[in-house]
Amino acid sequence: MTGRSRILVANRGEIAVRIVRACHTAGHEAVAVYSDTDKNARWVRMADEALHIGGSPAAKSYLNTDAILEAAKYAEVDAVHPGYGFLSENAAFARAVTAAGFTFIGPPPEVIELMGDKASARSAATEAGVPVVPGSRPVTDTDDAVRVAEEIGYPILVKAAAGGGGRGIRPVRDATQLTEVFAGARAEAQSAFGDGTAYLERALPRARHVEVQLLADHHGNLVHLFERDCSVQRRRQKLLEEAPAPGLDERTRNELGEAAKRLGEHVGYRNAGTVEFLVDPDGRFYFIEMNTRVQVEHPITEAITGVDLVAEQLRIADGASLSLTQDSARHSGAAVELRINAEDPDNDFLPTPGEITSFEAPGGPGVRLDTALTRGEQISPFYDSLIAKLVCWGADRQQAYARARQALSEFRVEGVANTIPLHRELVDDGELTEGAVHTTWLEERS
Amino acid sequence: MTGRSRILVANRGEIAVRIVRACHTAGHEAVAVYSDTDKNARWVRMADEALHIGGSPAAKSYLNTDAILEAAKYAEVDAVHPGYGFLSENAAFARAVTAAGFTFIGPPPEVIELMGDKASARSAATEAGVPVVPGSRPVTDTDDAVRVAEEIGYPILVKAAAGGGGRGIRPVRDATQLTEVFAGARAEAQSAFGDGTAYLERALPRARHVEVQLLADHHGNLVHLFERDCSVQRRRQKLLEEAPAPGLDERTRNELGEAAKRLGEHVGYRNAGTVEFLVDPDGRFYFIEMNTRVQVEHPITEAITGVDLVAEQLRIADGASLSLTQDSARHSGAAVELRINAEDPDNDFLPTPGEITSFEAPGGPGVRLDTALTRGEQISPFYDSLIAKLVCWGADRQQAYARARQALSEFRVEGVANTIPLHRELVDDGELTEGAVHTTWLEERS
Repeated sequence: MTGRSRILVANRGEIAVRIVRACHTAGHEAVAVYSDTDKNARWVRMADEALHIGGSPAAKSYLNTDAILEAAKYAEVDAVHPGYGFLSENAAFARAVTAAGFTFIGPPPEVIELMGDKASARSAATEAGVPVVPGSRPVTDTDDAVRVAEEIGYPILVKAAAGGGGRGIRPVRDATQLTEVFAGARAEAQSAFGDGTAYLERALPRARHVEVQLLADHHGNLVHLFERDCSVQRRRQKLLEEAPAPGLDERTRNELGEAAKRLGEHVGYRNAGTVEFLVDPDGRFYFIEMNTRVQVEHPITEAITGVDLVAEQLRIADGASLSLTQDSARHSGAAVELRINAEDPDNDFLPTPGEITSFEAPGGPGVRLDTALTRGEQISPFYDSLIAKLVCWGADRQQAYARARQALSEFRVEGVANTIPLHRELVDDGELTEGAVHTTWLEERS
Repeated sequence: MTGRSRILVANRGEIAVRIVRACHTAGHEAVAVYSDTDKNARWVRMADEALHIGGSPAAKSYLNTDAILEAAKYAEVDAVHPGYGFLSENAAFARAVTAAGFTFIGPPPEVIELMGDKASARSAATEAGVPVVPGSRPVTDTDDAVRVAEEIGYPILVKAAAGGGGRGIRPVRDATQLTEVFAGARAEAQSAFGDGTAYLERALPRARHVEVQLLADHHGNLVHLFERDCSVQRRRQKLLEEAPAPGLDERTRNELGEAAKRLGEHVGYRNAGTVEFLVDPDGRFYFIEMNTRVQVEHPITEAITGVDLVAEQLRIADGASLSLTQDSARHSGAAVELRINAEDPDNDFLPTPGEITSFEAPGGPGVRLDTALTRGEQISPFYDSLIAKLVCWGADRQQAYARARQALSEFRVEGVANTIPLHRELVDDGELTEGAVHTTWLEERS
């Protein structure tokens, strides 16, 4: 792909809209794919061509490698952008795309594989001199687990090696509880991910989740674009993210960036990726995992750096050099992203699929709304429940939160219960907006 | 007004929305006013309190000083923000606001008066050492006009001293035409502005319109926030604006900024204001007028500087110091604003009031939409025909225009003919997007 290319967008929802925009802005054509339920969706209307790839269940469409490759061949595209979720971190998919003669817009399949397995990712980090959470080799039975847990120290987490995105993780407070849950956790991992391998890790309940954005081209250029704090989580799902991480001193910020780059260099990383860390209250940090794709929360990095991360992904895949260097990378101000989900905060966050009967978007200085939805559209029960990502930038953190409060007061989504009321509470919470919180803060909050 | 204040927003439409947002973001309360036709308008719904001030014709509401002051008293506000247009540059209004005990969010009345009269503004510029367009003292009759025009050299403009915003100006190419139109131009000015004073000015048809943003507080701090190029005009109405001005060398940029500051200092300027210049093809610049209020196109300056201009207006009125200094003022990237009007480009740009039956807003990185409208709302025949201001920022000018093209392709407004098709053409025009154009470019464009 050089000059004007055709790019297949192998995803749906707001990230498909985001990628179509980036393709057009960079002068490329975008080919959309869609399932039954998505046939009139926004990214389908925006794309230069759109192809039906199967039924509404993701397994029949957005997770269907054969159907996606067939669409890519039919539309004679040059490259495939996997977005996030679905097949984005599936090494077999990346290999199949490449084998069919298309450019995969992401890292090499072997890097996806290496970082996709928690144990090998952890080894890579250690080799690169990046600290990891005190933990273990994979453990196979309950007796072994109890022995290893004793060495690590409680509380611990039992993690499925093949899990990801916060799934396949169980906190355990002592040996009794570990004995009770270990076999079940392995069986669950086997059924959810097709791989029952489990490993143990020290739990750091007062730590913050801080992640570093990397970009690497094919000419040896590797930069970090600072960090995001994603500590506001519920059941390990991120609800609100900030950049830069509040209250992080410059030394720790630089150390995190350099550690992420060491890992990226060690594994031969290419394209955009994110290295996730836990940072404990003393500023010590520990690698947890690497996401080998564009992140849901990438817009807050765009807001503070002015760099278009999806445009950089396209440049890199196109064989071009990064548009910036580590020395030219700057961050300015602060940004917060609110993930507005069609979930009912008053009913245990159950998804609330249905029709959006009213949609009034916020606006004004520093406000960005990424969504595939508007009035009259359906939130499908088949996919995730994200309605929109509301991103607010301010010259400082206080202004970013003030704009978020204002934008949330303007934002009206009717027809489906959603998390706007919860987000209004969050951005009014002084513990969050005037300090820095840890990953279990939201769940402990009354 | 210190701390949490109550601010009356003496305006309507998108700028009323903008001011309400700024009030809330700065922690103030906003009191809206509305005419009959605006009673359910967006800024009315967003404000903390809203008061009816009269009938739909502006003379009965938004131009009605007594009704606005009555509302200010009833609502017990601390300050009045006049927005742009309507009473924003009316010195008598500013005096009445101050006399009633409220803070007027703008410069002192005598400065509004001084800069509101073209002849005295021109004298002030000359005193401040700022070059003015070759021109004259006010002229009173046709013989005098012909004599003066001979000295200046044709083509000339006949300007109403009390005009503004592009109104009250007639281009004249020679003495015969001047003799034909002069008396009529004076009579028109008398009837339109209540003041028939006319003066002559050399016309500079190949010059660009470049304006400098000023901010001045009550502690002697005066900064310029660089410039905007507003050369894309039709009948002297701006249709598209850019910041920074394309192709302007750093020396001219600095000279313009310093000239604007000299004028601001000379007249004792306070709050936000804009000094407008013509820049000829050789880089010589000439003062044309000063707007003593927030400008429609202020968001492009916000986009390249990160400074919230309306927030600064509130700070200044509150007696606080500017949040920045000249040394800390920076600009980054490029921004373009498209004024989407309810006017029919295929029918001589006649206004097209009516109901918006469909409204789909663009979004994504760098895209800001300022509007008071959405689906189901009415564009009233009583006021200006602005639907929305679409502001696109990019890391460079090329990316700003690429994003503008994409945003315009997404933006759908149905029910009223509008200028989106014209704007799509403009952002595709290489003469504009790859060069720099002058103020008569659009009208000469076939």
